[in-house]
Amino acid sequence: MKVDGTHYRTIWLADDGWSFEIIDQRLLPHEFAIQRLTNIGEAADAIRTMAVRGAPLIGATAACGMCLQARVDASDDALREGYTQLLSTRPTAVNLRWALDEMLSAIQAPVINGRVAAAYAKAAAICDDDVATCEAIGRYGLDLFRERLGGRAEGGTLNVLTHCNAGWLATVDWGTALAPVYMAHDAGIDVHVWVDETRPRNQGASLTAWELGKHGVPHTVIADNTGGHLMQHGDVDLCITGTDRTTASGDVCNKIGTYLKALAAADNDIPFYVALPHTTIDWTIDSGGDIPIEERDISEVTHMSGRESDGSVKRFQVTPDGTKAANYAFDVTPARLVTRLVTDQGTCAASKEGLLGLFPERGPQQ
Amino acid sequence: MKVDGTHYRTIWLADDGWSFEIIDQRLLPHEFAIQRLTNIGEAADAIRTMAVRGAPLIGATAACGMCLQARVDASDDALREGYTQLLSTRPTAVNLRWALDEMLSAIQAPVINGRVAAAYAKAAAICDDDVATCEAIGRYGLDLFRERLGGRAEGGTLNVLTHCNAGWLATVDWGTALAPVYMAHDAGIDVHVWVDETRPRNQGASLTAWELGKHGVPHTVIADNTGGHLMQHGDVDLCITGTDRTTASGDVCNKIGTYLKALAAADNDIPFYVALPHTTIDWTIDSGGDIPIEERDISEVTHMSGRESDGSVKRFQVTPDGTKAANYAFDVTPARLVTRLVTDQGTCAASKEGLLGLFPERGPQQ
Repeated sequence: MKVDGTHYRTIWLADDGWSFEIIDQRLLPHEFAIQRLTNIGEAADAIRTMAVRGAPLIGATAACGMCLQARVDASDDALREGYTQLLSTRPTAVNLRWALDEMLSAIQAPVINGRVAAAYAKAAAICDDDVATCEAIGRYGLDLFRERLGGRAEGGTLNVLTHCNAGWLATVDWGTALAPVYMAHDAGIDVHVWVDETRPRNQGASLTAWELGKHGVPHTVIADNTGGHLMQHGDVDLCITGTDRTTASGDVCNKIGTYLKALAAADNDIPFYVALPHTTIDWTIDSGGDIPIEERDISEVTHMSGRESDGSVKRFQVTPDGTKAANYAFDVTPARLVTRLVTDQGTCAASKEGLLGLFPERGPQQ
Repeated sequence: MKVDGTHYRTIWLADDGWSFEIIDQRLLPHEFAIQRLTNIGEAADAIRTMAVRGAPLIGATAACGMCLQARVDASDDALREGYTQLLSTRPTAVNLRWALDEMLSAIQAPVINGRVAAAYAKAAAICDDDVATCEAIGRYGLDLFRERLGGRAEGGTLNVLTHCNAGWLATVDWGTALAPVYMAHDAGIDVHVWVDETRPRNQGASLTAWELGKHGVPHTVIADNTGGHLMQHGDVDLCITGTDRTTASGDVCNKIGTYLKALAAADNDIPFYVALPHTTIDWTIDSGGDIPIEERDISEVTHMSGRESDGSVKRFQVTPDGTKAANYAFDVTPARLVTRLVTDQGTCAASKEGLLGLFPERGPQQ
């Protein structure tokens, strides 16, 4: 999407035709800096240090890292070594392994002197496919947005509430939950986004607010506590979030706090949509209760980072010395609270029946 | 309650027998400092700058401020001037006006040379009454805690979730929502408190965590997003919060985000208790929707304060430059989500019938 009028992806081939460039997301929202990746070590570091984050973007960055490795040494040994190096950066990222597997088989297919070209072609395809997936989610989501807007006597502002960052910064472009927001905005719909700050890592206050602001989408940052009050007062027309994992029965595992907003949406009769690439549906799990929830370092709760008045960005402590904290990264929103799943293959009810209607090949008969 | 083994109130008569001392709550949780109030200007400043906060403590501090004024000049003019000066510090605080009215009539009752003694006696009574009120809330709340604990096959830890700070720091001693927690702890019950951080002002992470820690009550700070997940997993036995205002039909206006936790408690069949001095019931309002919700400065959302590694406490910016934010201070939890109101006069259902059962003198027949 746009940054001050110029279109960007989160990762792209540099002008030299071989290295890659990324936005260093660790510096956002306080600084917009582009970082060049010239070898596999730099690509691995970018993933490990979270200069890039978001499952699709991690996969895309790993793909580009394999190009940089193939360029230096495209032998099977070197490729396998590169694969291992990149995979170790974020061991639990499913998308990372998928992208590396795709790259490895694509690169190894041709004879050795065709491998570099094959690598670059495959990495470009992985990036472009991700953009197309998000664009499809956006189109289907936009239909729901229009439907919601059409239900009113007059048009006016469409108020959308989102949680965490499921925007273009988490993907190659467009984002998932935010794709329909950008499309609505670009189509001239008066869309306004309530941005949940999203403690403890503040992805909303930093990343979502930054990307919406740079593209020019009106938005307002709120404390995570605020959404319920806004819904009670008719200030939210719909909620839309991303999901890290969706079960075969439509339970949604997403950033901690998503469940609370879904409860408030249900209590106030507001649609709660969840946007996802269909590849993140976990057909092996029925109940969200079976998904293990990652616990992260408690310093994310006891400390925050921010910019001081002198411009420097620092970490600071917000709790008393020695305070115990707990930091669950995700929660599960039961399917009953999800109005509709918005995938790149269309939308469906958040239920086993709904999902099988959209993906009949997953049914027991096949 | 206790601070490192020594019992404190939030305001007390100093050893000199005439000045007062308070805990400067602006410095918490990073520094425990006692401040002396030697004249009415210092008392007014303490309220205005939020060195003291919480309705009961604001009232008590104003009462002490009137003592300091009477000591210098107990004439009607001087008292009226002091009244106006103190009232202007926090114009919307109902308790402030009540305490000042009480003080004014108590001081003006005797002849001029009996007024200073009358002032000190009345201020002491206001403080002691607040302690007695909170103690009564604590006793009634403790019965509910024991009931909840008794329902189990075995004892074990009683996990309590609270939002914001309704502890002794907001009152003269004991607190409201935390009074039964302290009593349970002191009675040897293994009580553990999940402390909602309570963005945007972080009263949970700073004040509640501090006071529980200093008294020795086990607790864990969590992001406001986390409570729903804990409730889904059986990690919360009951919720208890304070309330700024309770309507005649039992709707509860409390710190923003309370509603979301009440929704999660209802969804998971967990009791949601609200503790209050009966004087904060607003018998003139039925529906919580009629309560105007204060909007505070958006810098509370866009900035935070915390302690840097060098020990200095500073303000930091957490959102992109120029980000719009909204900062609603309270929300309304409908009575249907409140399991029981815990007052100093006993507990009751959060309903018109429940409240009239406890306070029949408020019924239409009287």
